[in-house]
Amino acid sequence: MAVYTQVSAESLSAFLAKFDVGELVSAKGIAEGVENSNYLVETTRDRFILTLYEKRVSVGDLPFFLSLLDHLAADGNPVPPAIPDREGQTIHTLEGRPACLIRFLSGVSVSHPTPAQARAAAQALGRMHASLATFEGVRANGLGASHWRPLLDQCGESMNQIAPGLYDRVARSLDAVLADWPSDLAVAAIHADLFPDNVLMLGDRITGLIDFYFACTDIRAYDLAVMHSAWGFDAQGNPLDPAIGRALVAGYADSFALTPQERAALPVLARGACIRFLLTRAWDWLNTPAGALVTRKDPLAYLRRLDWYESNPKAFV
Amino acid sequence: MAVYTQVSAESLSAFLAKFDVGELVSAKGIAEGVENSNYLVETTRDRFILTLYEKRVSVGDLPFFLSLLDHLAADGNPVPPAIPDREGQTIHTLEGRPACLIRFLSGVSVSHPTPAQARAAAQALGRMHASLATFEGVRANGLGASHWRPLLDQCGESMNQIAPGLYDRVARSLDAVLADWPSDLAVAAIHADLFPDNVLMLGDRITGLIDFYFACTDIRAYDLAVMHSAWGFDAQGNPLDPAIGRALVAGYADSFALTPQERAALPVLARGACIRFLLTRAWDWLNTPAGALVTRKDPLAYLRRLDWYESNPKAFV
Repeated sequence: MAVYTQVSAESLSAFLAKFDVGELVSAKGIAEGVENSNYLVETTRDRFILTLYEKRVSVGDLPFFLSLLDHLAADGNPVPPAIPDREGQTIHTLEGRPACLIRFLSGVSVSHPTPAQARAAAQALGRMHASLATFEGVRANGLGASHWRPLLDQCGESMNQIAPGLYDRVARSLDAVLADWPSDLAVAAIHADLFPDNVLMLGDRITGLIDFYFACTDIRAYDLAVMHSAWGFDAQGNPLDPAIGRALVAGYADSFALTPQERAALPVLARGACIRFLLTRAWDWLNTPAGALVTRKDPLAYLRRLDWYESNPKAFV
Repeated sequence: MAVYTQVSAESLSAFLAKFDVGELVSAKGIAEGVENSNYLVETTRDRFILTLYEKRVSVGDLPFFLSLLDHLAADGNPVPPAIPDREGQTIHTLEGRPACLIRFLSGVSVSHPTPAQARAAAQALGRMHASLATFEGVRANGLGASHWRPLLDQCGESMNQIAPGLYDRVARSLDAVLADWPSDLAVAAIHADLFPDNVLMLGDRITGLIDFYFACTDIRAYDLAVMHSAWGFDAQGNPLDPAIGRALVAGYADSFALTPQERAALPVLARGACIRFLLTRAWDWLNTPAGALVTRKDPLAYLRRLDWYESNPKAFV
């Protein structure tokens, strides 16, 4: 959410000269995405996002992300592929960082989605899953279900500094989630982080699905569960209009079939999603100094969601 | 250099509806300028910078800044005026902050200006001074010469944490500067902060002079001295090619006459500029926690410049 690596106008001009994209007209560092440095770059011909990958994205994963975006864009999904240079290369080095020049997409992220916007976004997720049925890339989910207990152990009793009794509370829910975690659902490439922040819209129309840097191979319906846990609640974790949750499931089903098994698993998948975000936020909370460049997100906003899913086991019926 | 106040797409759309500028298409928080929150906003018609003023800019000063920009833009200077809404208002409130919608200017800030770029930028400063000869607004320079001793006293002996002996070193130079500080030079509205960061260019052409939030009424030639101390050295304070310094003075004189008295005063004005930036950087250094949102700038980069001007009293001859 900040610009970590400064790119001078001189080195940016030299970088752009490798591409057939026109001459540099403007460049502004933007506060967007996970822990990368991003610039909104305008040339005499078009606009682009320049991304320099900081520590959080592994260079080894870039080919997976970029081939996934190419696959989706080729199939008509509104995602931002990387632009190849004159020699066909998409991954470059700039100011000592891996860097890509990425297509700019119009649209804004809504803070308070309406049911119509939620439905449109979930339709876009379903269309993306339909396209990804023929995508062959594989990337293990480093934040998937098998990683939650080790992550809980790493956070340890320090979690009780965030809220008294939090460690035991999460441990109990994690036991229940892992006991019920499905092993028979379709596994495929998923976005795994489709928060409202990562969906660009103009009115009710989806213009962009962005920030694929958590994309991985995991239970396909888990992607919808992540989306439900992100879109159905406010920033503090309080449930929004239940029509939004219904619109997400209905919108997804408009584009891609949910099997009865997938539908039945949504409650446990959603509780799992809550635990995943609760744990990574708790880890960041315990390991990020107050006042640092990165804004710490409240882990308890996901505890409230977890409470809600546990108290509303029929939310998806 | 960060986005302090988040503006939701919903409130931005409502804000833009007050203006005759088209509909919201895109908005990106940008890392630019002094401690304000800035967004690069695209509408169906044009692009704009939305600025929300944080604590560092006093609301009471906004009318001075905006009338100065209007005056300069009306006279053909490449500065970004605020856009009036349908009722003619330029100063608004958004997310609880004073806010202005400002014209977007193309161009990039160069990190390593060439003499030709320095000359063009100083020509633009001279043209701006010519326009400002008929500007009647007045704003005292809160960081002018009369404030340097109080600022030094506020920093106090803590300055020696930055470098041993720094307090006495600066106190001695300040005594000498204030003893020689001119009282007979023309006073006018000046930019007072025309660093390379605040000049947008395309090649050698100036497309924008920006960030007027230190503009004030002070000795006019001091503006050129500030520029000289900013452009003639690298970020560590080491002198660059002397041709850059010559290009600055020559470029300014291309557009606006320097009197012999002004030219003779440039060495003391430049030493004063060094003390001004050294002291404000020292204050920020001593009062900003390491790792905070704002990048601390090295005060010693201005001590090195001060050393250089003291060792090169004939730099402007």
